[in-house]
Amino acid sequence: MWPVGPAARGGLSMPNSPHLIGFFCDTPMIGSGYLAMLQIGLVAGCRKWDCALVIKSFDFSDRDIAEQAATLIARAPLRGVVVPEPLCDNPELLDVLFQAGLPVVRIAPHKDVGPTLDICIDNERAAYDLATYLIGLGHKRIAFIRGPRDHNDANVRFNGFCRAMEEARLPVIDELCVQSTTFDFCSGLSAAEKVLAIDPLPSAVFGCNDEIAAAVLAAGHRKGLRVPEQLSIAGIDDAPVARTVWPALTTCRQKMELTGYTAIDFIVNPPSSAEARKRPQQHELVIRESTARAKA
Amino acid sequence: MWPVGPAARGGLSMPNSPHLIGFFCDTPMIGSGYLAMLQIGLVAGCRKWDCALVIKSFDFSDRDIAEQAATLIARAPLRGVVVPEPLCDNPELLDVLFQAGLPVVRIAPHKDVGPTLDICIDNERAAYDLATYLIGLGHKRIAFIRGPRDHNDANVRFNGFCRAMEEARLPVIDELCVQSTTFDFCSGLSAAEKVLAIDPLPSAVFGCNDEIAAAVLAAGHRKGLRVPEQLSIAGIDDAPVARTVWPALTTCRQKMELTGYTAIDFIVNPPSSAEARKRPQQHELVIRESTARAKA
Repeated sequence: MWPVGPAARGGLSMPNSPHLIGFFCDTPMIGSGYLAMLQIGLVAGCRKWDCALVIKSFDFSDRDIAEQAATLIARAPLRGVVVPEPLCDNPELLDVLFQAGLPVVRIAPHKDVGPTLDICIDNERAAYDLATYLIGLGHKRIAFIRGPRDHNDANVRFNGFCRAMEEARLPVIDELCVQSTTFDFCSGLSAAEKVLAIDPLPSAVFGCNDEIAAAVLAAGHRKGLRVPEQLSIAGIDDAPVARTVWPALTTCRQKMELTGYTAIDFIVNPPSSAEARKRPQQHELVIRESTARAKA
Repeated sequence: MWPVGPAARGGLSMPNSPHLIGFFCDTPMIGSGYLAMLQIGLVAGCRKWDCALVIKSFDFSDRDIAEQAATLIARAPLRGVVVPEPLCDNPELLDVLFQAGLPVVRIAPHKDVGPTLDICIDNERAAYDLATYLIGLGHKRIAFIRGPRDHNDANVRFNGFCRAMEEARLPVIDELCVQSTTFDFCSGLSAAEKVLAIDPLPSAVFGCNDEIAAAVLAAGHRKGLRVPEQLSIAGIDDAPVARTVWPALTTCRQKMELTGYTAIDFIVNPPSSAEARKRPQQHELVIRESTARAKA
Protein backbone atom coordinates (compact mmCIF):
# COMPACT_ATOMS: atom_id res chain seq x y z
CA MET A 1 0.00 0.00 0.00
CA TRP A 2 2.92 2.36 0.65
CA PRO A 3 6.69 2.21 0.51
CA VAL A 4 8.30 1.11 3.76
CA GLY A 5 11.32 -0.96 4.67
CA PRO A 6 15.03 -0.31 5.12
CA ALA A 7 15.58 0.97 1.57
CA ALA A 8 12.85 3.57 1.75
CA ARG A 9 13.95 4.58 5.24
CA GLY A 10 17.66 4.71 4.47
CA GLY A 11 17.22 7.08 1.58
CA LEU A 12 15.15 9.55 3.55
CA SER A 13 17.09 10.04 6.75
CA MET A 14 17.25 13.63 8.01
CA PRO A 15 20.06 13.80 10.59
CA ASN A 16 19.57 17.47 11.43
CA SER A 17 15.84 17.35 12.11
CA PRO A 18 13.89 16.11 15.07
CA HIS A 19 12.70 12.60 14.52
CA LEU A 20 9.65 12.61 16.73
CA ILE A 21 6.17 13.43 15.48
CA GLY A 22 3.42 14.09 17.99
CA PHE A 23 -0.01 12.50 17.84
CA PHE A 24 -2.39 14.29 20.20
CA CYS A 25 -5.70 12.56 20.77
CA ASP A 26 -8.64 12.24 23.12
CA THR A 27 -8.28 9.60 25.79
CA PRO A 28 -11.71 8.02 25.13
CA MET A 29 -10.76 7.47 21.48
CA ILE A 30 -7.65 5.42 22.37
CA GLY A 31 -8.43 1.86 21.39
CA SER A 32 -11.21 2.81 18.96
CA GLY A 33 -11.17 1.30 15.48
CA TYR A 34 -11.03 4.79 13.99
CA LEU A 35 -7.83 5.77 15.81
CA ALA A 36 -6.36 2.30 15.32
CA MET A 37 -6.64 2.69 11.54
CA LEU A 38 -5.26 6.20 11.65
CA GLN A 39 -2.37 5.01 13.77
CA ILE A 40 -1.47 2.22 11.33
CA GLY A 41 -0.98 4.90 8.69
CA LEU A 42 0.87 7.24 11.04
CA VAL A 43 3.29 4.50 12.11
CA ALA A 44 3.86 3.48 8.47
CA GLY A 45 4.55 7.12 7.56
CA CYS A 46 6.99 7.40 10.45
CA ARG A 47 8.78 4.28 9.23
CA LYS A 48 9.14 5.78 5.77
CA TRP A 49 10.69 8.99 7.13
CA ASP A 50 12.73 7.33 9.86
CA CYS A 51 10.69 9.00 12.60
CA ALA A 52 8.86 7.73 15.66
CA LEU A 53 5.36 8.65 16.81
CA VAL A 54 4.79 10.26 20.22
CA ILE A 55 1.29 9.61 21.53
CA LYS A 56 -0.10 12.03 24.05
CA SER A 57 -3.68 11.73 25.20
CA PHE A 58 -5.85 14.48 26.65
CA ASP A 59 -9.20 14.36 28.35
CA PHE A 60 -11.79 16.70 27.00
CA SER A 61 -12.53 17.69 30.57
CA ASP A 62 -8.91 18.72 31.23
CA ARG A 63 -8.73 22.47 31.79
CA ASP A 64 -5.00 22.52 31.18
CA ILE A 65 -4.78 20.98 27.70
CA ALA A 66 -2.71 23.89 26.36
CA GLU A 67 -0.38 23.75 29.35
CA GLN A 68 0.10 19.98 29.00
CA ALA A 69 0.89 20.42 25.31
CA ALA A 70 3.36 23.25 26.03
CA THR A 71 5.12 21.10 28.62
CA LEU A 72 5.43 18.19 26.23
CA ILE A 73 6.82 20.22 23.33
CA ALA A 74 9.28 21.98 25.64
CA ARG A 75 10.62 18.59 26.67
CA ALA A 76 10.53 16.60 23.43
CA PRO A 77 12.01 17.80 20.12
CA LEU A 78 8.91 17.37 17.95
CA ARG A 79 9.01 17.86 14.21
CA GLY A 80 5.27 18.44 14.03
CA VAL A 81 1.98 17.30 15.48
CA VAL A 82 -1.03 15.41 14.12
CA VAL A 83 -4.34 16.24 15.80
CA PRO A 84 -7.59 14.44 14.97
CA GLU A 85 -11.13 15.61 15.64
CA PRO A 86 -12.39 16.91 18.11
CA LEU A 87 -9.10 18.20 19.66
CA CYS A 88 -8.11 19.73 16.32
CA ASP A 89 -10.72 22.46 16.81
CA ASN A 90 -9.41 23.46 20.24
CA PRO A 91 -8.04 27.02 19.79
CA GLU A 92 -5.93 27.08 22.98
CA LEU A 93 -4.14 23.88 21.99
CA LEU A 94 -3.55 25.12 18.45
CA ASP A 95 -2.15 28.44 19.69
CA VAL A 96 0.50 26.63 21.70
CA LEU A 97 1.54 24.64 18.64
CA PHE A 98 1.59 27.71 16.37
CA GLN A 99 3.70 29.66 18.87
CA ALA A 100 6.21 26.83 18.92
CA GLY A 101 6.39 27.05 15.12
CA LEU A 102 5.42 23.42 14.67
CA PRO A 103 3.67 22.11 11.56
CA VAL A 104 0.20 21.00 12.61
CA VAL A 105 -1.84 18.50 10.62
CA ARG A 106 -5.50 18.40 11.55
CA ILE A 107 -7.64 15.39 10.69
CA ALA A 108 -11.25 16.25 9.80
CA PRO A 109 -11.33 19.78 11.25
CA HIS A 110 -14.55 21.78 11.45
CA LYS A 111 -13.22 25.30 12.01
CA ASP A 112 -10.71 27.46 10.17
CA VAL A 113 -8.16 28.55 12.73
CA GLY A 114 -4.86 29.50 11.12
CA PRO A 115 -1.84 28.07 9.36
CA THR A 116 -2.65 24.40 9.73
CA LEU A 117 -2.40 21.59 7.23
CA ASP A 118 -5.85 20.06 7.02
CA ILE A 119 -6.92 16.65 5.82
CA CYS A 120 -10.57 17.25 5.14
CA ILE A 121 -13.04 14.44 5.43
CA ASP A 122 -16.55 15.15 4.25
CA ASN A 123 -18.52 13.34 6.91
CA GLU A 124 -21.74 15.02 5.89
CA ARG A 125 -21.37 13.77 2.35
CA ALA A 126 -20.32 10.28 3.45
CA ALA A 127 -23.51 9.90 5.48
CA TYR A 128 -25.56 11.47 2.68
CA ASP A 129 -24.16 8.97 0.16
CA LEU A 130 -24.82 6.00 2.39
CA ALA A 131 -28.35 7.16 3.23
CA THR A 132 -28.99 7.68 -0.48
CA TYR A 133 -27.84 4.12 -1.10
CA LEU A 134 -30.28 2.79 1.52
CA ILE A 135 -33.10 4.88 0.05
CA GLY A 136 -32.20 3.51 -3.40
CA LEU A 137 -32.75 0.00 -2.02
CA GLY A 138 -36.34 1.00 -1.31
CA HIS A 139 -36.00 1.71 2.42
CA LYS A 140 -38.36 4.40 3.68
CA ARG A 141 -38.54 3.84 7.42
CA ILE A 142 -34.87 4.31 8.32
CA ALA A 143 -33.56 4.70 11.86
CA PHE A 144 -30.38 6.61 12.69
CA ILE A 145 -28.32 6.07 15.82
CA ARG A 146 -26.57 9.33 16.57
CA GLY A 147 -23.07 9.66 18.01
CA PRO A 148 -21.90 11.76 20.99
CA ARG A 149 -23.54 15.20 21.19
CA ASP A 150 -20.31 17.19 21.53
CA HIS A 151 -18.63 15.52 18.56
CA ASN A 152 -18.84 17.50 15.33
CA ASP A 153 -18.29 14.46 13.10
CA ALA A 154 -21.27 12.79 14.73
CA ASN A 155 -23.47 15.82 14.18
CA VAL A 156 -22.58 16.37 10.52
CA ARG A 157 -23.12 12.69 9.81
CA PHE A 158 -26.64 13.08 11.13
CA ASN A 159 -27.07 16.19 8.98
CA GLY A 160 -26.05 14.23 5.90
CA PHE A 161 -28.59 11.54 6.72
CA CYS A 162 -31.32 14.17 7.15
CA ARG A 163 -30.43 15.86 3.86
CA ALA A 164 -30.72 12.58 1.93
CA MET A 165 -34.06 11.80 3.57
CA GLU A 166 -35.41 15.28 2.84
CA GLU A 167 -34.31 15.17 -0.78
CA ALA A 168 -36.13 11.85 -1.14
CA ARG A 169 -39.17 13.40 0.60
CA LEU A 170 -38.96 10.82 3.37
CA PRO A 171 -39.67 11.80 6.96
CA VAL A 172 -36.88 11.90 9.56
CA ILE A 173 -38.84 10.41 12.44
CA ASP A 174 -37.74 11.66 15.87
CA GLU A 175 -38.52 8.38 17.59
CA LEU A 176 -36.21 6.55 15.16
CA CYS A 177 -33.26 8.91 15.78
CA VAL A 178 -31.79 7.61 18.99
CA GLN A 179 -28.72 9.00 20.75
CA SER A 180 -25.69 6.90 21.63
CA THR A 181 -23.67 8.67 24.31
CA THR A 182 -20.31 7.56 22.87
CA PHE A 183 -18.99 5.98 19.66
CA ASP A 184 -18.43 2.61 21.30
CA PHE A 185 -20.21 -0.72 21.05
CA CYS A 186 -21.64 -0.76 24.60
CA SER A 187 -23.25 2.62 24.29
CA GLY A 188 -24.44 1.68 20.79
CA LEU A 189 -26.06 -1.44 22.19
CA SER A 190 -28.33 0.49 24.55
CA ALA A 191 -29.40 2.75 21.71
CA ALA A 192 -29.89 -0.22 19.37
CA GLU A 193 -32.16 -1.98 21.86
CA LYS A 194 -34.31 1.14 22.05
CA VAL A 195 -34.62 1.29 18.28
CA LEU A 196 -35.43 -2.39 17.92
CA ALA A 197 -38.16 -2.14 20.58
CA ILE A 198 -40.12 0.30 18.37
CA ASP A 199 -43.24 -1.06 16.65
CA PRO A 200 -43.33 -1.13 13.69
CA LEU A 201 -39.61 -1.74 13.25
CA PRO A 202 -37.58 0.32 10.81
CA SER A 203 -36.54 -1.65 7.72
CA ALA A 204 -33.01 -0.22 7.93
CA VAL A 205 -30.82 1.18 10.71
CA PHE A 206 -27.91 3.50 10.04
CA GLY A 207 -25.27 3.63 12.80
CA CYS A 208 -23.20 6.80 13.16
CA ASN A 209 -20.08 4.60 13.06
CA ASP A 210 -19.27 0.91 12.59
CA GLU A 211 -19.08 0.06 16.31
CA ILE A 212 -22.63 1.34 16.73
CA ALA A 213 -23.75 -0.53 13.60
CA ALA A 214 -22.17 -3.72 14.99
CA ALA A 215 -24.21 -3.18 18.15
CA VAL A 216 -27.40 -2.92 16.06
CA LEU A 217 -26.44 -6.20 14.41
CA ALA A 218 -25.89 -7.93 17.77
CA ALA A 219 -29.19 -6.58 19.10
CA GLY A 220 -30.93 -7.73 15.92
CA HIS A 221 -29.47 -11.24 16.16
CA ARG A 222 -30.52 -11.45 19.79
CA LYS A 223 -34.04 -10.51 18.82
CA GLY A 224 -34.02 -13.23 16.16
CA LEU A 225 -34.15 -10.82 13.22
CA ARG A 226 -32.58 -12.02 9.98
CA VAL A 227 -30.05 -9.52 8.61
CA PRO A 228 -30.36 -8.27 5.90
CA GLU A 229 -33.63 -10.06 4.97
CA GLN A 230 -35.66 -8.42 7.76
CA LEU A 231 -33.36 -5.56 8.70
CA SER A 232 -30.64 -3.76 6.76
CA ILE A 233 -27.77 -2.25 8.79
CA ALA A 234 -25.03 0.16 7.76
CA GLY A 235 -22.22 2.02 9.51
CA ILE A 236 -19.48 4.51 8.66
CA ASP A 237 -15.64 4.27 8.79
CA ASP A 238 -14.89 0.75 7.57
CA ALA A 239 -13.27 0.05 10.91
CA PRO A 240 -11.98 -3.49 11.55
CA VAL A 241 -15.27 -4.37 13.30
CA ALA A 242 -17.11 -3.96 9.99
CA ARG A 243 -15.36 -7.05 8.65
CA THR A 244 -15.27 -9.21 11.77
CA VAL A 245 -19.03 -9.32 12.38
CA TRP A 246 -21.45 -11.50 10.46
CA PRO A 247 -22.89 -10.53 8.11
CA ALA A 248 -20.10 -8.05 7.30
CA LEU A 249 -21.24 -4.43 7.39
CA THR A 250 -22.03 -2.14 4.50
CA THR A 251 -20.20 1.05 5.37
CA CYS A 252 -18.38 4.09 4.03
CA ARG A 253 -14.60 3.86 3.97
CA GLN A 254 -12.74 7.03 4.78
CA LYS A 255 -9.26 5.61 4.19
CA MET A 256 -7.98 6.49 7.64
CA GLU A 257 -4.76 4.52 7.12
CA LEU A 258 -3.97 6.57 4.03
CA THR A 259 -4.97 9.70 5.96
CA GLY A 260 -2.42 8.90 8.66
CA TYR A 261 0.26 8.20 6.09
CA THR A 262 -0.50 11.46 4.27
CA ALA A 263 -0.42 13.37 7.57
CA ILE A 264 3.20 12.36 8.17
CA ASP A 265 4.16 13.38 4.60
CA PHE A 266 2.52 16.75 5.27
CA ILE A 267 4.63 17.31 8.36
CA VAL A 268 7.89 16.30 6.74
CA ASN A 269 7.25 18.25 3.52
CA PRO A 270 4.70 20.97 4.27
CA PRO A 271 3.22 22.32 1.03
CA SER A 272 3.72 26.03 0.51
CA SER A 273 0.59 27.09 -1.34
CA ALA A 274 -2.52 27.83 0.69
CA GLU A 275 -4.57 25.63 -1.61
CA ALA A 276 -2.34 22.60 -1.15
CA ARG A 277 -2.64 22.97 2.61
CA LYS A 278 -6.22 21.66 2.47
CA ARG A 279 -6.21 18.08 1.27
CA PRO A 280 -9.57 16.39 0.75
CA GLN A 281 -9.70 12.69 1.56
CA GLN A 282 -12.18 10.87 -0.64
CA HIS A 283 -14.55 8.30 0.79
CA GLU A 284 -16.11 5.31 -0.92
CA LEU A 285 -19.13 3.14 -0.23
CA VAL A 286 -18.31 -0.43 0.68
CA ILE A 287 -21.30 -2.63 0.02
CA ARG A 288 -21.25 -5.84 2.02
CA GLU A 289 -23.87 -8.34 3.19
CA SER A 290 -25.67 -6.38 5.91
CA THR A 291 -27.91 -4.44 3.52
CA ALA A 292 -30.50 -5.64 0.99
CA ARG A 293 -33.45 -4.37 -0.97
CA ALA A 294 -36.44 -3.45 1.18
CA LYS A 295 -39.42 -5.77 0.98
CA ALA A 296 -42.16 -4.45 -1.25
CA MET B 1 -9.86 1.34 36.75
CA TRP B 2 -6.76 3.35 37.54
CA PRO B 3 -5.96 6.82 38.80
CA VAL B 4 -5.57 9.37 36.04
CA GLY B 5 -6.42 13.03 35.65
CA PRO B 6 -4.80 16.31 36.53
CA ALA B 7 -4.52 15.58 40.27
CA ALA B 8 -2.73 12.28 39.81
CA ARG B 9 -0.51 13.77 37.13
CA GLY B 10 0.32 16.97 38.97
CA GLY B 11 1.54 15.18 42.05
CA LEU B 12 3.90 12.92 40.18
CA SER B 13 5.81 15.23 37.87
CA MET B 14 9.52 14.49 37.56
CA PRO B 15 11.19 17.59 36.07
CA ASN B 16 14.69 16.14 35.90
CA SER B 17 13.83 12.92 34.11
CA PRO B 18 13.07 12.21 30.49
CA HIS B 19 9.37 12.13 29.86
CA LEU B 20 9.26 9.82 26.89
CA ILE B 21 8.74 6.09 27.20
CA GLY B 22 9.42 3.88 24.19
CA PHE B 23 7.03 1.22 22.96
CA PHE B 24 8.76 -1.04 20.45
CA CYS B 25 6.50 -3.39 18.55
CA ASP B 26 6.15 -5.47 15.42
CA THR B 27 4.60 -3.69 12.48
CA PRO B 28 2.07 -6.46 11.72
CA MET B 29 0.73 -6.20 15.27
CA ILE B 30 -0.10 -2.48 14.94
CA GLY B 31 -3.87 -2.24 14.84
CA SER B 32 -4.43 -5.66 16.47
CA GLY B 33 -6.84 -5.87 19.37
CA TYR B 34 -4.03 -7.21 21.57
CA LEU B 35 -1.77 -4.20 21.04
CA ALA B 36 -4.74 -1.82 21.18
CA MET B 37 -5.58 -3.03 24.69
CA LEU B 38 -1.96 -2.90 25.78
CA GLN B 39 -1.69 0.63 24.41
CA ILE B 40 -4.75 1.82 26.33
CA GLY B 41 -2.94 0.82 29.52
CA LEU B 42 0.38 2.28 28.39
CA VAL B 43 -1.20 5.62 27.53
CA ALA B 44 -3.08 5.69 30.86
CA GLY B 45 0.16 4.92 32.70
CA CYS B 46 1.93 7.71 30.80
CA ARG B 47 -0.85 10.11 31.79
CA LYS B 48 -0.41 9.19 35.43
CA TRP B 49 3.33 9.87 35.33
CA ASP B 50 3.13 12.88 33.04
CA CYS B 51 4.97 11.07 30.26
CA ALA B 52 4.25 10.46 26.59
CA LEU B 53 4.56 7.20 24.68
CA VAL B 54 6.91 6.89 21.70
CA ILE B 55 5.79 4.17 19.29
CA LYS B 56 8.42 2.65 17.06
CA SER B 57 7.57 -0.30 14.86
CA PHE B 58 9.96 -2.87 13.47
CA ASP B 59 9.50 -5.55 10.86
CA PHE B 60 10.60 -9.00 11.88
CA SER B 61 12.40 -9.23 8.54
CA ASP B 62 14.47 -6.08 9.24
CA ARG B 63 18.13 -7.04 9.62
CA ASP B 64 18.96 -3.75 11.28
CA ILE B 65 16.54 -3.80 14.24
CA ALA B 66 19.36 -3.13 16.73
CA GLU B 67 20.73 -0.28 14.61
CA GLN B 68 17.28 1.30 14.26
CA ALA B 69 16.78 1.10 18.02
CA ALA B 70 20.23 2.58 18.70
CA THR B 71 19.48 5.47 16.36
CA LEU B 72 16.17 6.19 18.04
CA ILE B 73 17.53 6.16 21.58
CA ALA B 74 20.46 8.35 20.54
CA ARG B 75 18.00 10.94 19.26
CA ALA B 76 15.18 10.77 21.80
CA PRO B 77 15.67 11.02 25.58
CA LEU B 78 13.83 7.85 26.57
CA ARG B 79 13.18 6.95 30.20
CA GLY B 80 12.70 3.29 29.37
CA VAL B 81 11.24 0.96 26.79
CA VAL B 82 8.33 -1.49 26.76
CA VAL B 83 8.73 -4.42 24.38
CA PRO B 84 6.01 -7.01 23.80
CA GLU B 85 6.38 -10.49 22.36
CA PRO B 86 8.00 -11.53 19.97
CA LEU B 87 10.48 -8.61 19.80
CA CYS B 88 11.14 -8.92 23.52
CA ASP B 89 13.13 -12.10 22.91
CA ASN B 90 15.42 -10.48 20.31
CA PRO B 91 18.91 -10.50 21.93
CA GLU B 92 20.46 -7.87 19.62
CA LEU B 93 17.67 -5.40 20.36
CA LEU B 94 17.91 -6.02 24.11
CA ASP B 95 21.69 -5.56 24.08
CA VAL B 96 21.30 -2.09 22.62
CA LEU B 97 18.83 -1.16 25.33
CA PHE B 98 20.97 -2.61 28.14
CA GLN B 99 24.05 -0.77 26.87
CA ALA B 100 22.11 2.48 26.96
CA GLY B 101 21.23 1.74 30.58
CA LEU B 102 17.50 1.94 29.91
CA PRO B 103 14.95 0.08 32.00
CA VAL B 104 13.32 -2.51 29.73
CA VAL B 105 9.92 -4.01 30.44
CA ARG B 106 9.15 -7.13 28.46
CA ILE B 107 5.58 -8.30 27.96
CA ALA B 108 5.19 -12.09 27.90
CA PRO B 109 8.84 -13.02 27.29
CA HIS B 110 9.92 -16.58 26.58
CA LYS B 111 13.66 -16.39 27.24
CA ASP B 112 15.74 -15.18 30.17
CA VAL B 113 18.17 -12.65 28.79
CA GLY B 114 19.40 -10.27 31.45
CA PRO B 115 18.35 -7.43 33.71
CA THR B 116 14.87 -6.88 32.30
CA LEU B 117 11.61 -6.28 34.09
CA ASP B 118 9.25 -8.99 32.93
CA ILE B 119 5.48 -9.10 32.98
CA CYS B 120 4.90 -12.81 32.65
CA ILE B 121 1.76 -14.09 31.03
CA ASP B 122 1.16 -17.81 31.23
CA ASN B 123 -0.23 -18.42 27.77
CA GLU B 124 0.19 -22.18 28.11
CA ARG B 125 -1.92 -22.20 31.24
CA ALA B 126 -4.54 -19.84 29.78
CA ALA B 127 -5.11 -22.21 26.86
CA TYR B 128 -5.02 -25.21 29.19
CA ASP B 129 -7.71 -23.66 31.41
CA LEU B 130 -9.94 -22.81 28.48
CA ALA B 131 -9.53 -26.25 26.90
CA THR B 132 -10.32 -27.81 30.28
CA TYR B 133 -13.49 -25.73 30.41
CA LEU B 134 -14.56 -26.97 26.96
CA ILE B 135 -13.79 -30.56 27.94
CA GLY B 136 -15.85 -30.04 31.10
CA LEU B 137 -18.81 -29.10 28.90
CA GLY B 138 -18.58 -32.58 27.40
CA HIS B 139 -16.75 -31.68 24.18
CA LYS B 140 -14.49 -34.44 22.90
CA ARG B 141 -13.95 -33.61 19.26
CA ILE B 142 -12.29 -30.20 19.60
CA ALA B 143 -10.56 -28.34 16.79
CA PHE B 144 -7.74 -25.87 17.39
CA ILE B 145 -6.78 -23.12 14.99
CA ARG B 146 -3.10 -22.41 15.51
CA GLY B 147 -1.47 -18.98 15.29
CA PRO B 148 1.64 -17.96 13.34
CA ARG B 149 4.44 -20.54 13.42
CA ASP B 150 7.21 -18.15 14.49
CA HIS B 151 5.22 -16.70 17.39
CA ASN B 152 6.03 -18.26 20.75
CA ASP B 153 2.71 -17.24 22.32
CA ALA B 154 0.88 -19.07 19.56
CA ASN B 155 2.94 -22.21 20.07
CA VAL B 156 2.60 -22.36 23.84
CA ARG B 157 -1.15 -21.82 23.56
CA PHE B 158 -1.30 -24.90 21.37
CA ASN B 159 0.82 -26.77 23.91
CA GLY B 160 -1.66 -25.85 26.65
CA PHE B 161 -4.54 -27.15 24.56
CA CYS B 162 -2.69 -30.43 23.92
CA ARG B 163 -1.88 -30.89 27.61
CA ALA B 164 -5.55 -30.49 28.59
CA MET B 165 -6.64 -32.95 25.92
CA GLU B 166 -3.99 -35.48 26.94
CA GLU B 167 -4.88 -35.23 30.62
CA ALA B 168 -8.51 -35.89 29.69
CA ARG B 169 -7.37 -38.82 27.51
CA LEU B 170 -8.85 -37.19 24.42
CA PRO B 171 -7.06 -37.37 21.08
CA VAL B 172 -5.48 -34.26 19.52
CA ILE B 173 -6.49 -34.95 15.92
CA ASP B 174 -4.03 -33.61 13.35
CA GLU B 175 -6.74 -32.87 10.79
CA LEU B 176 -8.54 -30.67 13.34
CA CYS B 177 -5.44 -28.60 14.18
CA VAL B 178 -5.29 -26.10 11.33
CA GLN B 179 -2.70 -23.37 10.91
CA SER B 180 -3.60 -19.71 10.54
CA THR B 181 -0.65 -17.84 9.04
CA THR B 182 -1.24 -14.71 11.14
CA PHE B 183 -3.30 -13.68 14.17
CA ASP B 184 -5.77 -11.70 12.07
CA PHE B 185 -9.38 -12.29 11.05
CA CYS B 186 -8.73 -12.82 7.32
CA SER B 187 -6.12 -15.48 7.87
CA GLY B 188 -8.32 -17.02 10.56
CA LEU B 189 -11.21 -17.19 8.11
CA SER B 190 -9.31 -19.39 5.64
CA ALA B 191 -8.35 -21.74 8.46
CA ALA B 192 -11.91 -21.72 9.83
CA GLU B 193 -13.36 -22.68 6.46
CA LYS B 194 -10.99 -25.64 6.31
CA VAL B 195 -12.04 -26.80 9.77
CA LEU B 196 -15.75 -26.43 9.07
CA ALA B 197 -15.43 -28.44 5.83
CA ILE B 198 -14.35 -31.51 7.83
CA ASP B 199 -16.91 -34.31 8.20
CA PRO B 200 -17.89 -35.03 10.92
CA LEU B 201 -17.63 -31.50 12.29
CA PRO B 202 -15.93 -30.84 15.61
CA SER B 203 -18.40 -29.91 18.37
CA ALA B 204 -16.10 -27.08 19.53
CA VAL B 205 -13.43 -24.93 17.91
CA PHE B 206 -10.75 -23.17 19.92
CA GLY B 207 -9.14 -20.20 18.17
CA CYS B 208 -5.58 -19.23 19.13
CA ASN B 209 -6.84 -15.65 19.67
CA ASP B 210 -10.15 -13.81 19.56
CA GLU B 211 -9.79 -12.54 15.98
CA ILE B 212 -9.39 -16.13 14.81
CA ALA B 213 -12.34 -17.24 16.97
CA ALA B 214 -14.45 -14.44 15.45
CA ALA B 215 -13.53 -15.80 12.02
CA VAL B 216 -14.74 -19.27 13.06
CA LEU B 217 -17.99 -17.67 14.17
CA ALA B 218 -18.44 -15.87 10.83
CA ALA B 219 -17.65 -19.06 8.91
CA GLY B 220 -20.10 -20.99 11.09
CA HIS B 221 -22.88 -18.42 10.54
CA ARG B 222 -22.26 -18.52 6.79
CA LYS B 223 -22.58 -22.30 6.86
CA GLY B 224 -25.87 -21.97 8.76
CA LEU B 225 -24.56 -23.51 11.97
CA ARG B 226 -26.23 -22.38 15.19
CA VAL B 227 -23.69 -21.17 17.76
CA PRO B 228 -23.44 -22.46 20.47
CA GLU B 229 -26.18 -25.10 19.95
CA GLN B 230 -24.38 -26.89 17.12
CA LEU B 231 -20.88 -25.50 17.55
CA SER B 232 -19.10 -24.01 20.57
CA ILE B 233 -16.39 -21.43 19.85
CA ALA B 234 -13.78 -19.91 22.17
CA GLY B 235 -10.81 -17.57 21.78
CA ILE B 236 -8.08 -16.04 23.93
CA ASP B 237 -7.26 -12.42 24.91
CA ASP B 238 -10.66 -10.83 25.51
CA ALA B 239 -9.91 -8.38 22.72
CA PRO B 240 -12.64 -5.89 21.74
CA VAL B 241 -13.77 -8.24 18.94
CA ALA B 242 -14.86 -10.80 21.56
CA ARG B 243 -17.64 -8.44 22.65
CA THR B 244 -18.67 -6.98 19.30
CA VAL B 245 -19.56 -10.28 17.60
CA TRP B 246 -22.77 -12.21 18.19
CA PRO B 247 -22.94 -14.36 20.16
CA ALA B 248 -20.19 -12.80 22.27
CA LEU B 249 -17.12 -15.00 22.64
CA THR B 250 -16.08 -17.11 25.58
CA THR B 251 -12.41 -16.30 26.02
CA CYS B 252 -9.55 -15.92 28.47
CA ARG B 253 -8.80 -12.37 29.60
CA GLN B 254 -5.16 -11.55 30.08
CA LYS B 255 -5.75 -8.03 31.38
CA MET B 256 -3.59 -6.37 28.74
CA GLU B 257 -4.73 -2.89 29.76
CA LEU B 258 -3.56 -3.50 33.31
CA THR B 259 -0.37 -5.03 31.91
CA GLY B 260 0.36 -1.83 29.99
CA TYR B 261 -0.37 0.31 33.02
CA THR B 262 1.90 -1.86 35.19
CA ALA B 263 4.66 -1.68 32.57
CA ILE B 264 4.83 2.11 32.88
CA ASP B 265 4.94 1.87 36.69
CA PHE B 266 7.82 -0.59 36.32
CA ILE B 267 9.81 1.84 34.19
CA VAL B 268 9.22 4.81 36.46
CA ASN B 269 9.89 2.88 39.67
CA PRO B 270 11.96 -0.19 38.82
CA PRO B 271 11.86 -2.70 41.69
CA SER B 272 15.26 -3.56 43.12
CA SER B 273 14.91 -7.19 44.14
CA ALA B 274 15.38 -9.85 41.47
CA GLU B 275 12.17 -11.52 42.55
CA ALA B 276 10.09 -8.39 42.12
CA ARG B 277 11.44 -7.94 38.61
CA LYS B 278 9.28 -10.84 37.40
CA ARG B 279 5.64 -9.91 37.74
CA PRO B 280 3.06 -12.55 36.85
CA GLN B 281 -0.13 -11.28 35.25
CA GLN B 282 -3.11 -13.45 36.15
CA HIS B 283 -5.66 -14.48 33.54
CA GLU B 284 -9.32 -15.30 34.00
CA LEU B 285 -11.88 -17.21 32.00
CA VAL B 286 -14.69 -15.07 30.62
CA ILE B 287 -17.68 -17.26 29.86
CA ARG B 288 -20.04 -15.72 27.30
CA GLU B 289 -22.65 -17.05 24.89
CA SER B 290 -20.49 -18.76 22.25
CA THR B 291 -20.01 -21.98 24.24
CA ALA B 292 -22.51 -24.53 25.55
CA ARG B 293 -22.71 -28.08 26.77
CA ALA B 294 -21.98 -30.66 24.08
CA LYS B 295 -24.93 -32.69 22.89
CA ALA B 296 -25.05 -36.14 24.40
